[in-house]
Amino acid sequence: MSAYKLNPERFFDSDREVRKYAIELYDSVKDLPIISPHGHVDPVLLAENRPFSDPTELFLIPDHYILRLLYSQGIPMEDLGVPRKDGGKTEIDHKKIWQIFADHYYLFAGTPTGAWLDYEFFEVFGISERLNRNNAAKIYDQLQEKLISEEFLPRALYDRFNIEVLATTDSAVDSLEFHQKLQKSDWNGRMIPTFRPDSVFNIASSEWIDEIAALHLATGIVTDTFSSFICALESRREYFKDNGATATDQGILSPYTHELSYMEVNSIFKNALKGNVTKENAEAFIAHMIMEMARMSTEDGLVMQLHPGSFRNHNDTVFRHFGADKGADIPVKTEYTRNLHELLNKYGNDTRLTLIVFTLDETAYSRELAPLAGHYPAMKLGPSWWFHDSIQGMTRFREQVSETATIYNTVGFNDDTRAFPSIPARHDLSRRVDSNWLAGLVARHIIGMEEAFSMSRALAYDLVKKAYKL
Amino acid sequence: MSAYKLNPERFFDSDREVRKYAIELYDSVKDLPIISPHGHVDPVLLAENRPFSDPTELFLIPDHYILRLLYSQGIPMEDLGVPRKDGGKTEIDHKKIWQIFADHYYLFAGTPTGAWLDYEFFEVFGISERLNRNNAAKIYDQLQEKLISEEFLPRALYDRFNIEVLATTDSAVDSLEFHQKLQKSDWNGRMIPTFRPDSVFNIASSEWIDEIAALHLATGIVTDTFSSFICALESRREYFKDNGATATDQGILSPYTHELSYMEVNSIFKNALKGNVTKENAEAFIAHMIMEMARMSTEDGLVMQLHPGSFRNHNDTVFRHFGADKGADIPVKTEYTRNLHELLNKYGNDTRLTLIVFTLDETAYSRELAPLAGHYPAMKLGPSWWFHDSIQGMTRFREQVSETATIYNTVGFNDDTRAFPSIPARHDLSRRVDSNWLAGLVARHIIGMEEAFSMSRALAYDLVKKAYKL
Amino acid sequence: MSAYKLNPERFFDSDREVRKYAIELYDSVKDLPIISPHGHVDPVLLAENRPFSDPTELFLIPDHYILRLLYSQGIPMEDLGVPRKDGGKTEIDHKKIWQIFADHYYLFAGTPTGAWLDYEFFEVFGISERLNRNNAAKIYDQLQEKLISEEFLPRALYDRFNIEVLATTDSAVDSLEFHQKLQKSDWNGRMIPTFRPDSVFNIASSEWIDEIAALHLATGIVTDTFSSFICALESRREYFKDNGATATDQGILSPYTHELSYMEVNSIFKNALKGNVTKENAEAFIAHMIMEMARMSTEDGLVMQLHPGSFRNHNDTVFRHFGADKGADIPVKTEYTRNLHELLNKYGNDTRLTLIVFTLDETAYSRELAPLAGHYPAMKLGPSWWFHDSIQGMTRFREQVSETATIYNTVGFNDDTRAFPSIPARHDLSRRVDSNWLAGLVARHIIGMEEAFSMSRALAYDLVKKAYKL
Repeated sequence: MSAYKLNPERFFDSDREVRKYAIELYDSVKDLPIISPHGHVDPVLLAENRPFSDPTELFLIPDHYILRLLYSQGIPMEDLGVPRKDGGKTEIDHKKIWQIFADHYYLFAGTPTGAWLDYEFFEVFGISERLNRNNAAKIYDQLQEKLISEEFLPRALYDRFNIEVLATTDSAVDSLEFHQKLQKSDWNGRMIPTFRPDSVFNIASSEWIDEIAALHLATGIVTDTFSSFICALESRREYFKDNGATATDQGILSPYTHELSYMEVNSIFKNALKGNVTKENAEAFIAHMIMEMARMSTEDGLVMQLHPGSFRNHNDTVFRHFGADKGADIPVKTEYTRNLHELLNKYGNDTRLTLIVFTLDETAYSRELAPLAGHYPAMKLGPSWWFHDSIQGMTRFREQVSETATIYNTVGFNDDTRAFPSIPARHDLSRRVDSNWLAGLVARHIIGMEEAFSMSRALAYDLVKKAYKL
Repeated sequence: MSAYKLNPERFFDSDREVRKYAIELYDSVKDLPIISPHGHVDPVLLAENRPFSDPTELFLIPDHYILRLLYSQGIPMEDLGVPRKDGGKTEIDHKKIWQIFADHYYLFAGTPTGAWLDYEFFEVFGISERLNRNNAAKIYDQLQEKLISEEFLPRALYDRFNIEVLATTDSAVDSLEFHQKLQKSDWNGRMIPTFRPDSVFNIASSEWIDEIAALHLATGIVTDTFSSFICALESRREYFKDNGATATDQGILSPYTHELSYMEVNSIFKNALKGNVTKENAEAFIAHMIMEMARMSTEDGLVMQLHPGSFRNHNDTVFRHFGADKGADIPVKTEYTRNLHELLNKYGNDTRLTLIVFTLDETAYSRELAPLAGHYPAMKLGPSWWFHDSIQGMTRFREQVSETATIYNTVGFNDDTRAFPSIPARHDLSRRVDSNWLAGLVARHIIGMEEAFSMSRALAYDLVKKAYKL
Repeated sequence: MSAYKLNPERFFDSDREVRKYAIELYDSVKDLPIISPHGHVDPVLLAENRPFSDPTELFLIPDHYILRLLYSQGIPMEDLGVPRKDGGKTEIDHKKIWQIFADHYYLFAGTPTGAWLDYEFFEVFGISERLNRNNAAKIYDQLQEKLISEEFLPRALYDRFNIEVLATTDSAVDSLEFHQKLQKSDWNGRMIPTFRPDSVFNIASSEWIDEIAALHLATGIVTDTFSSFICALESRREYFKDNGATATDQGILSPYTHELSYMEVNSIFKNALKGNVTKENAEAFIAHMIMEMARMSTEDGLVMQLHPGSFRNHNDTVFRHFGADKGADIPVKTEYTRNLHELLNKYGNDTRLTLIVFTLDETAYSRELAPLAGHYPAMKLGPSWWFHDSIQGMTRFREQVSETATIYNTVGFNDDTRAFPSIPARHDLSRRVDSNWLAGLVARHIIGMEEAFSMSRALAYDLVKKAYKL
């Protein structure tokens, strides 16, 4: 990466022919509006439109992609300003933290985080030097100055980023207060919620009873039986739809699906209300709830997303002291063919359902996911996720999925980010990688340029819009 | 792909040096005769040598590769003319079905099916336009006209395709009537049967008793004990050999191998005859029968093929209404190191046995299959199979297998097709991909051009001929 | 590969830009000293510094990489001069064996073994022809002549190879006699032992009691309780440290880690002393001993290496007749996220520990190992191992690991070899592949050339030196 500006041909193959096609394809999609159907930006940001506080707060502290790498190299979380749950001492001098970050910026060379940060610094914030040990303080000040200016307010950035829709991820019991404020405001953007019921499904969690109480509060429904619980969920889905939602999302360890009899599931539910939960019951309940979510989506039309395979909070020490989302979620092997059998048999042939499946286990791409999505009308594949949202990761996804499922059973790109200023960086990277992949097919005469243009547009815009009903 | 003819350099890397070598290597093998040691062409086709009925009947309805993709995009099987088991209404206007196919031909861009179809249309049938929504009817008529002409009769195509041997896959109880007709005829081609006993091994199937009855009929042996069952199988293998067979084939879910005591297996067999079968018994019986097949192959010299890892008829609805082979067979994880342990320990050191193993689980290539084939004299690796019989799939196979097993423990290419006119398309694709892979090794000075020529010929012709004893 | 000398640009991409950068990067590291932190060279070689006996003895008989491929092609071990355990007849004419090897030298085209052998013949021994059927005897004689000359004595080669440190792998009960001789000698090289306790951990082995006796002899400690066993191990680790060791190594089937209570582990240990061992106990004992090894490493600073996932001696016949290490060790699927959970939770946040993890299951690279190493400060990834120590294998490792873990959580290269003259060949190959991988990143503007130079040096020298504390 050049020291002063990003190379306009970055991430394309150096082969002249491939690069020539890649540039043409990228040029044809680079200015298309951004559709972000799945992410974690806080709606309060756009609702209140206040300036970001400082560079460390904006780029570093909330970004577990950055934290985990610094931590892996032996830098304590405390030195990075991550708040301790016990209120213990952590660094509060944000310039000092920034210096540590700059000292280790070389770590990010060749990583997606590095590519996104470079884009943010150079393209979004107009910094003209690469961050390093020596210019850390200077760049901090430059960024700080921009952050307080009008043109770096969240809504100004939203417009500059050319965002058409931005979906958030919201708890099933969320009031959607800020989404409503946005809708009532004169803001002309489109920010929509996504229904994520994990916390009310996880009967094994110590917080479940509180979540059920919150569900009662939010719906007015006394959920003392499984059927009333379902009513409350349906009511909440309705509420989300009324507030603009087009999709739901479920994060699970295993995608095992299995319907219980009403008697069974009601008994598990009622026992859980009394605090009696076994591991088996908790798993059976989730397996049943995935089935229920599919049924509801078939009926109410909300697109259903499934994100399995992350062993959350693998590092107990980090979790105990610093909480969730600190880079310690580790993927596990994930099986789809057998686990989704019951769901796909019951709902997979129904064209009213759109089920978008993600994975952290790349071995499932060619073996299970592409064959399933290449057959069942209801099933589509989400893009390469999390650790695999990278140049090589996205390329592997395209190469291992497309011959069997075709791009038409995939759904474009998701940025899945908490980091608002990284949104254009991530979409730009994705458009470059897809353009480059298509260019390779053209250069090998596997597809023609005309097809490539239409596939390129599909990947950048059409597929996501259609799949998420936006 | 150009609109009017196929690019002669298609599927080769755009790097000049790689492409130059790839062209040379491909030119050296492109005219070698086709050996097709494993496939599903109906022998009646060549025995009767009658014209194909129409383009929809020839290209579409029997091809589950095409059906599954159209179905995945929400097109009902009925609209594609797939007959319903209940005799329900399906489209019978073949021109109408052809139009739906043409409307969606863009789906096949970048898929192996698309590459094969393009070859068939342009090279085999001399069509001069790419199929699309607008020219569907015209191309249908052009194809129809050819289909009824002399030069498109099956035997004429067999000669034109330069086929040296064409193996079919036949039930253990098959009379091989059409193979015998062919042998008695003045036809100068070579079509041979392959012994596939799956249906007589699957004691859990509701059709098993009928299969056993058919086995009795075919052999005259009353198979009321396991030993008489083995006699009947040996007699059938003999019969297949007498009719030209050089190989057997077994499709199984798991490649688990384990020999039972005679008392155990006989008891399972006799219980099955009375209709008493457990899942465990059915699996144990298969595990034992793989061992028996290896023993018999060691003795009678028939090459043994194992195809594990497909969850057949995953979609119950499609199976109930339309039957098997409709694109709903989905791969599962498959383990070889432990599962083949008993078989390889008993027969793997015996050079009289040739055991060819396939997989749908690409993760086994470098981890298990290449190390096994790179050690046991009896074991060879079948080519990339089914979903993986594609440009990327074949490339991954070569890249992940060759450094450990060498190409000399693989067996060339199998087309594995029901679609007779796709045979040259598939072999051409395979020869191109292998040439390109070897060209890449030459361009990186990993091998020399002299070695590449000999490896190229081995992959296209020598290895398959030797491994299948043809 | 040219017939007369190795191409200086071998193994680099043919793309001009990539190749240009690769050459620059390779030139910058090719003359760095070799650090070999993990291998199996016999210390007696350098301690006694006697000439190698003959080419067959040097290149062939001890090299299971070569044996397994020849055996896979149906050549009996006996014909290759591999001694039978029963004293049965094997070929003793080494020229005859060499001829068989030369007859089949084409098998090694495109394999890492072929690349290493070519380097050894051309670069180390100055042979000017490629080995083949016709020149076998001549090249044998040429090699033989060199082997008896001064400049091909082990120490002369050590200097010529520019080795800075060479670590061996030694049984926990080894006297380290030859290491001590070397240290007392006037030799100016550095050869250090590595503590490998597998044989004293494997309570299920018939040789375990003997190993425990040897441990007693070596330490003077009566190991009749688990705590005295731990004392003995600690004493041995101390002894190894005193003799220069900086690391330990454990080879295991599964990386499952779990601490038992003292009562449990002591009971298992004492029962084992009486010959009472179950499979479950043996596995639980290993799981506990990995935890103990991590504790000890945290305390005494020895770097801890874990090598899981090899099903040793898969071929009983070969093992019975010819013993271990004959090419019949086959990888199995290996799970890390759950298996290492307990160890990483107890020791993974402790920066005093360096835990280097290897795998034969490439599917774990991107799914489990890179995310784990990209988070836990104590964990690092060993290089691509065994079958995967190849051009494609190393490339896959870099591509699948680096975006998530960065190269800074990996530890450079290990040659892991018994074959002394192959050491420079292996390091040269690794430096070429890494240079080419980095060149690809530069050519795609993913990293800059300045970063690439520093990463290149890190991969060839800095990382291994730091990780292994050398």
